[in-house]
Formats: sequence, structure tokens, C-alpha cells
Amino acid sequence: MVQAVAMARNEDGIGTALGILKQQFGERCQTGMAIREQHGHTTTWIVNQPPDAVIFAHSTEEVSAIVKVCAAHGVPIIPFGTGTSLEGHVNAPAGGVSIDLSQMNEVLEVNAGDLDCRVQPGVTRMALNTHLRDQGLFFPIDPGADASIGGMTATRASGTNAVRYGTMKDNVLSVEAVMANGEIIRTASRARKSSAGYDLTRLMVGSEGTLGVITEITLRLQGIPEAISAASCSFPTIEAACEAVMATIQYGLPVARIELLDALVVKGVNAYSKLSLPETPLLLLEFHGSDAGVAEQAATFGELAAEFGGSGYAATTSAEERTKLWQARHDAYWAMLALRPGCKAVATDVCVPISRLAEAVGGANAKAAELGLIAPIVGHAGDGNFHASLLLDMDNLDEVARAEEYVSWLNDRAIALGGTCTGEHGIGQGKRPYLLRELGGAVEVMGAIKRALDPDNIMNPGKILPA
Amino acid sequence: MVQAVAMARNEDGIGTALGILKQQFGERCQTGMAIREQHGHTTTWIVNQPPDAVIFAHSTEEVSAIVKVCAAHGVPIIPFGTGTSLEGHVNAPAGGVSIDLSQMNEVLEVNAGDLDCRVQPGVTRMALNTHLRDQGLFFPIDPGADASIGGMTATRASGTNAVRYGTMKDNVLSVEAVMANGEIIRTASRARKSSAGYDLTRLMVGSEGTLGVITEITLRLQGIPEAISAASCSFPTIEAACEAVMATIQYGLPVARIELLDALVVKGVNAYSKLSLPETPLLLLEFHGSDAGVAEQAATFGELAAEFGGSGYAATTSAEERTKLWQARHDAYWAMLALRPGCKAVATDVCVPISRLAEAVGGANAKAAELGLIAPIVGHAGDGNFHASLLLDMDNLDEVARAEEYVSWLNDRAIALGGTCTGEHGIGQGKRPYLLRELGGAVEVMGAIKRALDPDNIMNPGKILPA
Repeated sequence: MVQAVAMARNEDGIGTALGILKQQFGERCQTGMAIREQHGHTTTWIVNQPPDAVIFAHSTEEVSAIVKVCAAHGVPIIPFGTGTSLEGHVNAPAGGVSIDLSQMNEVLEVNAGDLDCRVQPGVTRMALNTHLRDQGLFFPIDPGADASIGGMTATRASGTNAVRYGTMKDNVLSVEAVMANGEIIRTASRARKSSAGYDLTRLMVGSEGTLGVITEITLRLQGIPEAISAASCSFPTIEAACEAVMATIQYGLPVARIELLDALVVKGVNAYSKLSLPETPLLLLEFHGSDAGVAEQAATFGELAAEFGGSGYAATTSAEERTKLWQARHDAYWAMLALRPGCKAVATDVCVPISRLAEAVGGANAKAAELGLIAPIVGHAGDGNFHASLLLDMDNLDEVARAEEYVSWLNDRAIALGGTCTGEHGIGQGKRPYLLRELGGAVEVMGAIKRALDPDNIMNPGKILPA
Repeated sequence: MVQAVAMARNEDGIGTALGILKQQFGERCQTGMAIREQHGHTTTWIVNQPPDAVIFAHSTEEVSAIVKVCAAHGVPIIPFGTGTSLEGHVNAPAGGVSIDLSQMNEVLEVNAGDLDCRVQPGVTRMALNTHLRDQGLFFPIDPGADASIGGMTATRASGTNAVRYGTMKDNVLSVEAVMANGEIIRTASRARKSSAGYDLTRLMVGSEGTLGVITEITLRLQGIPEAISAASCSFPTIEAACEAVMATIQYGLPVARIELLDALVVKGVNAYSKLSLPETPLLLLEFHGSDAGVAEQAATFGELAAEFGGSGYAATTSAEERTKLWQARHDAYWAMLALRPGCKAVATDVCVPISRLAEAVGGANAKAAELGLIAPIVGHAGDGNFHASLLLDMDNLDEVARAEEYVSWLNDRAIALGGTCTGEHGIGQGKRPYLLRELGGAVEVMGAIKRALDPDNIMNPGKILPA
């Protein structure tokens, strides 16, 4: 495993705080090793760093009470949703208390007339969409995993629909948060737009638990489109597929999804999901709109794709076929793992300006080959965001070292192309050196904000910024 | 006039700094009273508070040099674009230096393939759109005035197109800024989305010059739509017009513009722009898309409008007729002034959840009548944002007092309806008490950020936060 951040522990403070919290929360304050490790669990190659306790909070007031005890004794707090983050966000390098928000899972209100809702942080995106369906509404952000809305907010998540509907930054109207001193704030009203002072909503979105614990989220919703059409299209090369995406975006076609799978991923998906797609680079698409609008979009994409050698293109409005296609896309992670039994998958997450997508993806493939690594690529291509997932034998130290070289090269390459080391996964523990390379002096401004709002560095320490 | 913020002046520091800056900038450092008053000019009823000097900056490095001199001597800095802000943003309550950025007006690069561009802050939105037209691109944010991109960024501006294209927060990819210590930072890469640390871009958007001077802006652009159609539709009552807007948004119709004009404004517009619209509440609309898509949208709106008594509805794809309609909308400010010769127009700017629009607008009309005030209403109705403009005889102190009562009532009413005291104009000097009523403890968090990034309070002091 890759070394995590090393930080000093405040043993006395932790001991005192845990004594108080155990009394206050009884059985809801757990200290068994299994549950602690599960809450430090990382879906990446960073070593597990368990918290000292896990508390299942039931209300904003309880979160505030926990934070006040921890603040009084200098004890770290790590907010926890579903544990699907990918950069070691829930690790506890200095120990402390994991606040598990999964039981704060109520949809508090749905304002259908305003296309918004207010939810607790533990509501998952699938649970929310199930709740909304009867009202003809949906929440579009789809990172693949059935993540919690709180966690998605904290990491500025996005996923397959972002090309049309934006990321969490575009879909969170307001949050309620418990700050490092235990104070509860609400960052904005429910108005659709506002110029009321500093944009604390957007500051909390993507702050990865380092500024406060998000305890409520007000979300924008969308009406379920009149018509939805899905399609797949094969391409002779990965560059050709990327060029078709670039042309689609430059044309202004309002695709709802445009996902890239390289040939290796398609092979894995065929085997895993029992499909028979041509094993060449593939785009999966979805169009939203009126019946006529969807048909027009699908036809326009067909014309664009043909210019880049697209083949086997067919759009379908069958909900069943569409679900099958997207299930295959969402299962791509498992399909990739099955390509190399026993391997560990380590996700990368670069995002480049769309005009650089073909060279970025092509270069990533070439670099993996050069280093003798297996690194299939899927991408939210319409945003210029793609994930090369390294399939690693973690016992092979030389391979792991080459993988580290690859990750470093890929992040630097994206930055050199005018892009970012993280399109949607966040910085966490793993990407802190790249944040500095990407944004330079701006990181010092982030540090000043962190010190101002959390002077004792108790909110998810060791993430985003230097420990 | 309404009293402005009173703040102590640092006479010694100002004297020393001006001596240095005059030497450095020669003729570009102006201290004549006319130019100083012009740069403190407010388009509202707040008294003019001129800066001590105006410097016309030509580069980011020059801005940094000015800030460093001012920082060394504790002298306020007020960034200035075109002076069209509406809440006293460019006033200098503690004196200091106005940095005029209007001569930093170059479009630095246009990346047509990425639908983005990088501009200096003094580029105005009309100049940018003229520059972009040949490439089939446009920048959609349209606050009416030909404001500078820097100023629009600093106030989180929006306007008529925001219902479709969002506000400045949605269309700024990155900024370069000079912070209070003179350091130059860039907040983000040019990638379309990112999870790279705290969202400093969105923190600077809407910070009103209080955290730093914005010296470059990277913007998202849009392709000019294949087809544009404009329309107007009259309604029997203002409530009926609002209800038609609510139904349009709830239906999910992707209108590009949906603007409300009350009967008094229509009367003024007819007289000023020589039109013959029925003098009842009016919606002005614009649809963007493919030929077929635009026709479909226009037809759908017609059906919705009919349910609320809409009449005289006709859509046109004639560019000439469309320009005439929108020119009339943009001239509404002058048309309103002409309704009461010699009056001063004082703009309000509340924004409410769309489901509350009819009662908010209806209530505002009733309150104006109750207080004996003339307050015609225009609104970016699709966002729930509307402006009641008080037409005041500023020599009538009783009328001014009633106007103050109205403004206070309206802001509180919007907040009570779940909305905000400012949809797009910002807080400036005028709305600071309402910010506190709207967001409570969150304002203290804003204050902590301000103190961390500008410990000596030199960046546009007396705006947004307590002086």
C-alpha cells in the first residue's frame, strides 16, 4: 500500500473526549476495531487509518454537540457518508471521531413547484430519486456509486450527467453546516440565484469535511424529461471516439450523457454484463428532451459520429434497453476488476479542456503501455474528464512503483494541458502534492481560509492541505 | 440622499502612498475632484464618497504594485470597472485609491474548440460579444448595462439570460486576482469541471472587491444558437403573468429569457421606445435552439400562457423585430425615469423561490400603493428575481422616508418567503443590514474569511461586511 499522511496524535484529548462522548451517545458511539477500520476504509491504495470511535449522529444538534466536545479537547472529526470516496477522505491520520451521517437519511421537504428539495446528508442519490419519482422529478448527479448526498456535496461530485446538468456546485442551492466551533450556519436562501455576500455554499461544496460538517443540503431538481433516448456507437480508435465527443460539444448538442469506454473496458463489460458489443472504443450516449427534440439530437449525433468513423450507431427509447446499457456502464468498475482477478483497481481522475481530450487519452494509453501497466480508461468525455484505472498486483512492488510513476505523470500531463488533477474525486490525502503544482499560490489562500475557520485543524485534518 | 457608511480615514498613510504612486504612475494617477467623484459615483441614493486618487492600471503587475504600496501604508483600494453597480460598491468611505481597470480591456485568448476565452477585467460584455461574433460564439450573461466583465464577476451579475445560462458563478471558469498582500493567484485551471480544493473561483465571484482585485477572467462561452425566436404576451393581471412564468419553469421549458414588465413599465416603454404594446402586464420571451426546437418551445409556451389569460402572443424569428423588443426592455430604466421627469430611480433586487413569485410581486405592488409610492416592476421572472424601481423626488424627505420603509419591508418580505435581498446586484454598502437578517451566523464566517485574507481591511472596506 501507499503510505498515508503521518500526523501526531493528541492522546490525552482523544481519551478525554471519548469518555464524554461514550456517556452522551452510549451504543451509538462505537469503538470496535472492525467498525473503526470500516470507517477509515479507503477505496484506493492508501493504507487504512482508523478513527478512534464512530458515532452515529441523528440530528444537526447532535453533530454540533460532538464537534463542541472535540473542539474543547483538540480532537479530529471525520464526517462519513457511505465511504465511497476515492482519495482517502475518511482516513483518520491523527485519529479522532468519525461522525457517521448515514442515519440522518430523511428527505425533509420537496418543493415540486420550485424544483428543489431539502435533505439530510445521509440520503443516498438512489433513495432520493426513488422518493422523487412519483412527483415527476429527479436529481441528475450520478457518480456511479450510490453515494450519500452529503458526501457528494463534500467532494463536489459529478459523473455521467454532468455534461448536461453540471456538477454538485451547480445543483446545491444551500447547505446547513456545523463549523469547527460547533456553530450551525446556513449558507444561502432557497432562491434560485443570489448575490448575497461570499458564496459560502460553493466554499462548502468540495471542502471535503475540512471546514465543517454538512448537515442539510438544499438541492435543485429537474423534471423527468418527456423523452429519453440512449445509444451506443463504436469507433476504430480511441482518438476517433474522442474527436467525435469534441465535435459534439463544440456543435453545442445538449447531450445528457456522453461516456467513453476504451476497447479493454468494452471487453470487460461484455464478459461481465453478458453483452456483445464490438470490442473497440465505444461511446454511450443519452438524450433528454421532447419526443421530437430527442429524435433530432440523436440524428445530429449520428451525422457527427459518421465523420469520425463511428459505426453500429443506433438510438433506442426503450427503457429496458437503456437500463441495460447504463447498468453495464456502472458495472464497468467490477468488469475491469474481473479482467485481472485478485488485482486492486486504483482510479485516476484527470480533466482537460475538451480540445485536448484525444491527445490526453491517447497519451495516457501510450504511457501505460510504455510502463507495462494495465490501465483501462472510462471517461465522462463530454467534460474532458477521464479515469484510467490501474489494475495492480499490490504484491509486486516494482509494478506499484511504476503505477506511482504513471499517476504522477498523468496528473502533471493534465495540468500541462490546461487541466486539473481531479475532475470529480477531490484531493483527499492522495493528491495534495498535485494541488500545489496545479494552483501554486492559490493553495496558500486556501490554507489561510482553513486556519481562519478551523484554527486548531480538527476538521478532517490531513486532507486537501498540508497536514 | 441616504447616508453612506462612515469610516475613519488614515490620513498619514494616504498621503505617503499617494506620493509614491504619483511618482510611479505620473499622469495615470489622477487626483482631480471631477474624476474622483465620477469614480465614487453611485447609481443609487447613497451619497458620493470619492476616493483620494484614481489610477488607470495597464497590467496585473501594475495592480500588484499599487496594492503593495497601499498595503504597506494601510490605504484602501477600490476596484473600478464601468461604474454601473447599484449598491454603492465603488464609494470610498475611508478614502483611498480607485484602481480603474477600464484600460485593461484586451481579449487575451479565445479557445473556440473549448468554448472558453480569457479576458482582462475591463472588457465589456458588448465588446466581448462583438469580438466573438465571427467565430459563432457568444457570452450569454446580460445585466442590461454594458458592464465590464471584471465588475460582473465581482458582483456575481446575471440578468435576462440567466434562466437558461446561469449567472456569473456558472460561467466563470477561473480568475486571476491580486490579493491584499499583492500576491497574484489563479483560482483554477481551464478544465470545465474540477474538484481541486476549495472553490476560490466562486469565492471571488461576488466578493465585490473585498478580497482582491480581479485581473483576468476565464469564461465559458456558448455557440450562437441555430435559431432564435422572440415573443411577447400580455396578461390581465400581474399575478396571471407571474403564474404563467411559474408554470413555464415548472414545466421545464428551456426558455432563454422570460422577462416581466408591469403595466406602468409597459406604458413608459411605449412612450419612450415608440411602441404600441397593450398597457397591461407583459412577458417578453426568447427561445434558443434548432429551428424545430424553437418552434416547439414557442408553441408550448403559447399553450401554457393561454391557461393564464395570455393574449396577443406571437413569436418571431425576425432579428430586427427581436432587437427592437429587447432594446425596449433594456431601455426600460430610461423609460421609467421619463414617467416622472426629474425623479431619481432607486432599484431594489429581491429574488424568491419561483412558487412565491406571484404573491411577492403582487404584495410589492400593494405595499407601494399603500405608501403612496411609484414603484414600477420589471423582473427576470424565470429566476424569481424582480426589481421594483422607486421613482423618487429626492427633495421630498417624507417620500424618501416612505421609500426607505418600502425597501426595508420588501427585503424582509423576500427573506420571509425563503428568498434573498439581492438576486444579482450584490450587498455593497446598501444591503449590509439585510445580509445579516438573511443569513445570520453565516455572516460571521464571511467576516472570518475577510479578516484572514485582508487583515488590515484595505480591500474595498465598508462593503458586504460591517465597516
